[in-house]
Amino acid sequence: MVNNRSQTSLKEKLYTIIFEAETRAGKLFDVMLIIVILLSILTVLLESVAKLRQDFQQTFVLAEWTFTILFTIEFILRIYSSPKPKKYLTSFFGVVDLLSILPTYISLLVPGSHYFMIIRVLRLLRIARIFKLSHYLHEGQILSNALKASATKIIVFIATVMMLVVIIGALMYVIEGTEHGFTSIPKSIYWAIVTLTTVGYGDIAPQTTLGQFLASVVMLLGYGIIAIPTGIVTVEMANASHPKTTTQVCPNCYKEGHEEKANFCNQCGHRLNP
Amino acid sequence: MVNNRSQTSLKEKLYTIIFEAETRAGKLFDVMLIIVILLSILTVLLESVAKLRQDFQQTFVLAEWTFTILFTIEFILRIYSSPKPKKYLTSFFGVVDLLSILPTYISLLVPGSHYFMIIRVLRLLRIARIFKLSHYLHEGQILSNALKASATKIIVFIATVMMLVVIIGALMYVIEGTEHGFTSIPKSIYWAIVTLTTVGYGDIAPQTTLGQFLASVVMLLGYGIIAIPTGIVTVEMANASHPKTTTQVCPNCYKEGHEEKANFCNQCGHRLNP
Amino acid sequence: MVNNRSQTSLKEKLYTIIFEAETRAGKLFDVMLIIVILLSILTVLLESVAKLRQDFQQTFVLAEWTFTILFTIEFILRIYSSPKPKKYLTSFFGVVDLLSILPTYISLLVPGSHYFMIIRVLRLLRIARIFKLSHYLHEGQILSNALKASATKIIVFIATVMMLVVIIGALMYVIEGTEHGFTSIPKSIYWAIVTLTTVGYGDIAPQTTLGQFLASVVMLLGYGIIAIPTGIVTVEMANASHPKTTTQVCPNCYKEGHEEKANFCNQCGHRLNP
Amino acid sequence: MVNNRSQTSLKEKLYTIIFEAETRAGKLFDVMLIIVILLSILTVLLESVAKLRQDFQQTFVLAEWTFTILFTIEFILRIYSSPKPKKYLTSFFGVVDLLSILPTYISLLVPGSHYFMIIRVLRLLRIARIFKLSHYLHEGQILSNALKASATKIIVFIATVMMLVVIIGALMYVIEGTEHGFTSIPKSIYWAIVTLTTVGYGDIAPQTTLGQFLASVVMLLGYGIIAIPTGIVTVEMANASHPKTTTQVCPNCYKEGHEEKANFCNQCGHRLNP
Repeated sequence: MVNNRSQTSLKEKLYTIIFEAETRAGKLFDVMLIIVILLSILTVLLESVAKLRQDFQQTFVLAEWTFTILFTIEFILRIYSSPKPKKYLTSFFGVVDLLSILPTYISLLVPGSHYFMIIRVLRLLRIARIFKLSHYLHEGQILSNALKASATKIIVFIATVMMLVVIIGALMYVIEGTEHGFTSIPKSIYWAIVTLTTVGYGDIAPQTTLGQFLASVVMLLGYGIIAIPTGIVTVEMANASHPKTTTQVCPNCYKEGHEEKANFCNQCGHRLNP
Repeated sequence: MVNNRSQTSLKEKLYTIIFEAETRAGKLFDVMLIIVILLSILTVLLESVAKLRQDFQQTFVLAEWTFTILFTIEFILRIYSSPKPKKYLTSFFGVVDLLSILPTYISLLVPGSHYFMIIRVLRLLRIARIFKLSHYLHEGQILSNALKASATKIIVFIATVMMLVVIIGALMYVIEGTEHGFTSIPKSIYWAIVTLTTVGYGDIAPQTTLGQFLASVVMLLGYGIIAIPTGIVTVEMANASHPKTTTQVCPNCYKEGHEEKANFCNQCGHRLNP
Repeated sequence: MVNNRSQTSLKEKLYTIIFEAETRAGKLFDVMLIIVILLSILTVLLESVAKLRQDFQQTFVLAEWTFTILFTIEFILRIYSSPKPKKYLTSFFGVVDLLSILPTYISLLVPGSHYFMIIRVLRLLRIARIFKLSHYLHEGQILSNALKASATKIIVFIATVMMLVVIIGALMYVIEGTEHGFTSIPKSIYWAIVTLTTVGYGDIAPQTTLGQFLASVVMLLGYGIIAIPTGIVTVEMANASHPKTTTQVCPNCYKEGHEEKANFCNQCGHRLNP
Repeated sequence: MVNNRSQTSLKEKLYTIIFEAETRAGKLFDVMLIIVILLSILTVLLESVAKLRQDFQQTFVLAEWTFTILFTIEFILRIYSSPKPKKYLTSFFGVVDLLSILPTYISLLVPGSHYFMIIRVLRLLRIARIFKLSHYLHEGQILSNALKASATKIIVFIATVMMLVVIIGALMYVIEGTEHGFTSIPKSIYWAIVTLTTVGYGDIAPQTTLGQFLASVVMLLGYGIIAIPTGIVTVEMANASHPKTTTQVCPNCYKEGHEEKANFCNQCGHRLNP
C-alpha cells in the first residue's frame, strides 16, 4: 500500500512535470522539450539536403534515433502519468505525439517514410502553454471563430470555384490542346487553379489567341473573386470583435447606444430599464 | 378514362420521384443521379488523359454512351412528367439537362465536341435540393445579393481596368517591341492583364530598362487596384446585415430612403403608406 | 444680320448635336461616334499584328487616315460650335480629342508614333453621357472620392514600399550577384517589386539558399502588406456610403439613431429637437 | 568667455540650421541635404550597372567619396551642435546617419561592402520634416497603430502559416522528389511559400499528378488565407476611427472598458474618476 501510494505520488509528480508548466520542473521540462523538438525538425530539414546527407549520414541516423527514443520514452511516461490515458491517446496532442515517433519505426520497413516525422512541427503548439500565451490562444480563438462563422459561406464559395475551374479547364483543353501543354482536362483544371488564384507559375501558358483571351477573362475573374473570401472574413471579424450595443435609452438623459451588459447609464448614472 | 387516370397518377408519381426529394424513392433517385453525374464527369476527365484513352478506348466509348442514354431517358421522363413541360425546358436546369446530353450526339458529326459534356458539372447544383441545403442556398443568396448590389461599381471598375490595360498594352508594344515577345498590341494587352492581376506567368516579360520600369508601375498599380473590388464587396456584405432602407416615398413631402420599420416620414412627420 | 443670326442658330444646332445627347440627332451622333472610335481602336490593335499588317497594309493605312480625318473634322466642329472654345480646348475631353488625332499626323515625321492614337480609348468615356449613365458616373464618383480620401494614407504606404524595395533590391544584389540574373541594383529592385506584389514572373529568381530565404521573407511581407491598401480603401468606402446617424433621440418615443437631416421621428412622427 | 559665448551662439545657430527647418537657412540646408542624398543613392544604383561601372569607374569613385565626406562633415556638425550628442547618437536618425557613411570606409577593407550605403534611403524620412508633412506623419501613425493593434493576431497567423508551410514542404519533397526540382525539404518549403503567397515564380513546379493536386490545394488555401490578414488590418483600421474605450476602472465595482466620454460606470452607476 505504501508502494502504491508512492507510486501514485510519483504519477502525480510526473503529471505536474510533463503535462503542466506551473512548477519550476514543469517549466524546465517543457522548455527542454521545445528545444529537442526544434532540433529534431532541424535534423529532418538538413538530412533532406543531398550533400549533407552524404557527408554526415552516420550523424543523422544517430540523431534521428536519439530523438525518436527520447520522444518514445516521453510518450510512455505521458501515458503512464496521465490519469485518463485513453482520453490522452485520443486527444489532438496524443495523436500528434504518436505520429511523431511512428515514422522512424516504420522507416525500418518502408524506406523514405521517416520524412513524415515532420509532423513533429505540430508538437510546437505546446509552446502556447509554456509561455502562458493564453492571450495568443485567445487571438487564435477569435480567428478560428471568425472562420467557423463564415464556414458555410466559404463552402458555397469553394464549391462555386470548383465548378468554374472544371468548366474552364475543359474549355482550355479543347481550345489549346495537347501541343501547348494542356495535355489532359485534369492538367487544364490545374492550370485554371494556378491562374484563378493568381499564382501563375508559367509552366503551362496559353499560346493561341483565343486561349489567351479566355485566360485574360479567367485572370480578371480571379482578381475579382478574391474579394469574396476577403469580404466574408472581414465582415465576420468585424462582427466578432465589436461589443454589441443595444437599443436601450437612458430614461433620465436619453443617452443611447449602451453596451449589452450595461445596467446604468454611463453619462448620468441613472438605472437603465432592463 | 381509367387508363387516363392511371396515366395521370403515373405522371404524378414520376414527378414526385424525379423532381422532388421528399419521398424515399425521390431521395434515392436524386442520390443515384448525383453519383451517375459524378461518374460521367470522372469519365470525361480520365478520357482526356492520352495514355488512358489509348489503353481503355472501348471502355470510355461504352461508358460515355451509357451515361448519355441514361441522361436522355431521364430527360424524356422529366419532360413527360412535368406538368408544364415548356416551363421546364426553358428553365436553367432544363437547358443544362439538354446541353448535358447533346455533346455526345453532336460528337458523331463533329469529333472532339464531346468534351463539352463537362457542362454536366452544373447539374450538380441539384445537390442543394437533395441534402436540403436551403441554408447553403441562403448563403449563396447573400453572396449573390452582395455581388448584385455592387454590380454597377464593379462594371465601372472593370471598364476602367479595360481602358488602363489597352493603354498600357500599346505603350509596352512601342517600348519593348516584337523582339522581346510583345509581338502585337493584343498580346501586349494580354501581358498587361497577366501583370495587373498579379498572375505573372513569365512567358512574356519586359527586357528593356524602360519596359521594366513601366512594368513595375503596373505591378504596384495592380497591387493597389485589387483593394477596390475587395472594398466594394466587403462594404456590400457588411450592408447586407445592416437595416435596409426601403423604396417608400413620403406621400406628403416625397422624401425617399426611409428605414424598413419607419411608420412616419422623418422629414415632415406625415404617416407613411404601409 | 440675318446671316449672322442663322449662323448663330447653326452653331447652336451643331452644339446640341455634337455636345449633347438630348435630341434624336444628338443621340445618333454620339452612338455613331462611339462606333467609329471602337472601329478605329480595333484597327490599331489589328494593325499591330505582324501577319495582318503585311497582308492588309493598304487597308490599314486607308482606315487610319479615314478615321483621323473624320475625327479632325469633328474636332474643328467642336471648336466652332463651342460657345467657349478655349474652355473646351483646355478641358479633359478637349485635350483627349486633340491627342487622338495628333499621332497620325506626327507619324508622317516620326514612324511608329501612330500607335499612340490608342489614347482614343479615353474618348469612350463619353459613353457615360449617351446612355445617360449618370448613375454609373455617380458610382465612379464614390470610388474616386474614396480613393481621394485615402490618398494621403496611400502616398505614405507607397513611399514606405519604395524604401523597402530599394533596400531589399540592394541586399539581393549583394547576396545573389550578377551570375544569378541580379545584374544591377535597379534590376534587383525590379525583382523586389515583382516579388512583393506577388506577380512573380520567374524571369529572375534567387538561386542561393540565403537569397531564397530573403525572398521568402519578402513574399510573406508582400502577402501581409497587401492588407494595408485593402484596409484603407475598404474603410474609406464604408465611411463614404453610410448615411451618418446622429445621437438625436425622439423626445416622444425615445427612438434613437435618426439620420442627420431628419426633422421628425420616423417611428411616432413627433418633431425632433434640432 | 566672450569666445565661449560666441561658440555657444555658433552651436545654437548650427543647430537651427541642421536640425530644424523653421528658418530660411534651415530649410535650404534640408532641401540641399535631400538632393545630395537622392544623388548619392542614384550613384549607388548606377554604379551597380556593369556597363556604367566600367565606363565611368573614376567618376563613381570620386562621387562616392565626395558624398561620404560631405555626410561625414554633416555628421560631425550634428554631433557638435546637438545639445545632447549621446541622445542624438542613439536615436533612430543618429544610427542611420552613422550607417550611411560607414560602408564607404569599410569598403577600403572589405570590397563590395559599399553597396550597404543604400541604407541612406532611410535618411529620406527627414523629408517629412522639411515639407512639414506632419499630416503625412499622422497618417503613418494611424497605419502603424493599426498594425501594432493587430500584432498579436498577425503573429498567431504567421506562426500558423509557418507550420503549414513546413508540413506542405515535407509532403511535396516526398511526393515530387529530387528529380523534379524539389531537391531538399528547405527548398520545398521555399516552393510552398512561393505558392501559398501566390507569387508563383515557376522555377520549381510540381510535375506529378499527385504533386499538382496538392499544389492546387495549397493555392486555394493561399487564396483563402490572404483574407485573414486583410480582415485583421481592415477591422483594426475601422476601429481606429471608432470611439475608443479608456483604461478607466470604476472605483466602486472595478468594471473596466468605459467609453472615453463616460462620466458614470454603466454597471453600478458610480461616478468615474475624471
